[in-house]
Amino acid sequence: MTPQAIGATTWVVADGYIPPGSNGPAPAMISHDSICMLNAGGEPARVSVEVFYTDRDPVGPYELTVPARRAHHQRINDLRDPEPILPGVDYCLVVRSDHPIVVQHTRLDSRQAENALMSTIAYPSAL
Amino acid sequence: MTPQAIGATTWVVADGYIPPGSNGPAPAMISHDSICMLNAGGEPARVSVEVFYTDRDPVGPYELTVPARRAHHQRINDLRDPEPILPGVDYCLVVRSDHPIVVQHTRLDSRQAENALMSTIAYPSAL
Amino acid sequence: MTPQAIGATTWVVADGYIPPGSNGPAPAMISHDSICMLNAGGEPARVSVEVFYTDRDPVGPYELTVPARRAHHQRINDLRDPEPILPGVDYCLVVRSDHPIVVQHTRLDSRQAENALMSTIAYPSAL
Amino acid sequence: MTPQAIGATTWVVADGYIPPGSNGPAPAMISHDSICMLNAGGEPARVSVEVFYTDRDPVGPYELTVPARRAHHQRINDLRDPEPILPGVDYCLVVRSDHPIVVQHTRLDSRQAENALMSTIAYPSAL
Repeated sequence: MTPQAIGATTWVVADGYIPPGSNGPAPAMISHDSICMLNAGGEPARVSVEVFYTDRDPVGPYELTVPARRAHHQRINDLRDPEPILPGVDYCLVVRSDHPIVVQHTRLDSRQAENALMSTIAYPSAL
Repeated sequence: MTPQAIGATTWVVADGYIPPGSNGPAPAMISHDSICMLNAGGEPARVSVEVFYTDRDPVGPYELTVPARRAHHQRINDLRDPEPILPGVDYCLVVRSDHPIVVQHTRLDSRQAENALMSTIAYPSAL
Repeated sequence: MTPQAIGATTWVVADGYIPPGSNGPAPAMISHDSICMLNAGGEPARVSVEVFYTDRDPVGPYELTVPARRAHHQRINDLRDPEPILPGVDYCLVVRSDHPIVVQHTRLDSRQAENALMSTIAYPSAL
Repeated sequence: MTPQAIGATTWVVADGYIPPGSNGPAPAMISHDSICMLNAGGEPARVSVEVFYTDRDPVGPYELTVPARRAHHQRINDLRDPEPILPGVDYCLVVRSDHPIVVQHTRLDSRQAENALMSTIAYPSAL
């Protein structure tokens, strides 16, 4: 199959939250919030993430590159530049890419002894 | 990046339910149903929530404001005016906003000792 | 607000499955698969559900009515006519309505001591 | 009802991951990632799955047929040709079909004693 970009260039995650606390072996069972991205196309996708908070101005952009024809699962916990995103704080994400990608949002919550999971395809926008 | 409103002005959550009972420390582990909203635009969004029930007329509007460029995660448990939404009762939500927003629906169920999570982007409507 | 139908008239749930077995008090903690529906409009919605299986012909229609301006959360476990849907069997659902509705699919799995949850807005079709 | 194909011919799952390890009786409680598909139409759907990785070229196609008017829930764990998909590795999926289908992505994670579930309708593309 020839490389073909699939998806949209703007995506929104509205329920961002890194559970504060974990049980189980690291790194797999560390509580985390992730954006899982596919770049199915033939060009690298330059992705910028903007983080919105409840009571202060948005922070970003956090910049990533997803190579051509690659998956990239990004834990929000691991973003560092311009600043870490703190556990226990509500946020939303706007993910913009210069080529179409697909974004899925997943959380693993291991605050209690047994982990909980949630996932949804993010909201794609034509903007 | 310049503020740009993203999303839709009508959203639906069809599986509304506040689990009756909780285990674990408050407030994080209290069973709850939430609508997580992003207003990415430059104007405050006036949001009204209408609650639909199985066997009586809808109740609302519940009125909220999501400031410009802000996240707002609203626990349904915490809505009070015109009346509380009771745990253990099936409901649906219609969320309307005067500016485009994005809505994600999440439930944390801690009725048993270990919590369960579910989440989905709500249904956006052109209406 | 004036009653206004919202949604689509055909919806698909592709991952249908009633977990065979439960732990915890009935009925809340009985393992179940549900379709949660909103009829926001001013007319009753006549809903028919068709059940697709892996290795036999589809079964249905299962017929329901969602009254005007009402929520209706239907456990698949409770459908009886033309026949029950058995636990432990893979299925898909096509939900058709004569008026626009919104459908969300949720499963509670209590086969193990602590329950698990999953939910997604179903797939809306223009057909 | 007459058979009528519903859905799209290209679907994306961005958060692919088979949890490495399981608790509970096989096969139900084996950790798995699944794509649940409905072919509501009157013709068999020839489905090909392409698997994208973080650090190597995509692998595929994995070929399946979903018969007319049938459900097919496919565990990713069970795909073998051209090669198995390994537990503990991040991936994304592009699912293409020669007739419209609907795809829902579900994971059961039983690495810990109590299972966790997540599900979302996959991302449908017009491509």
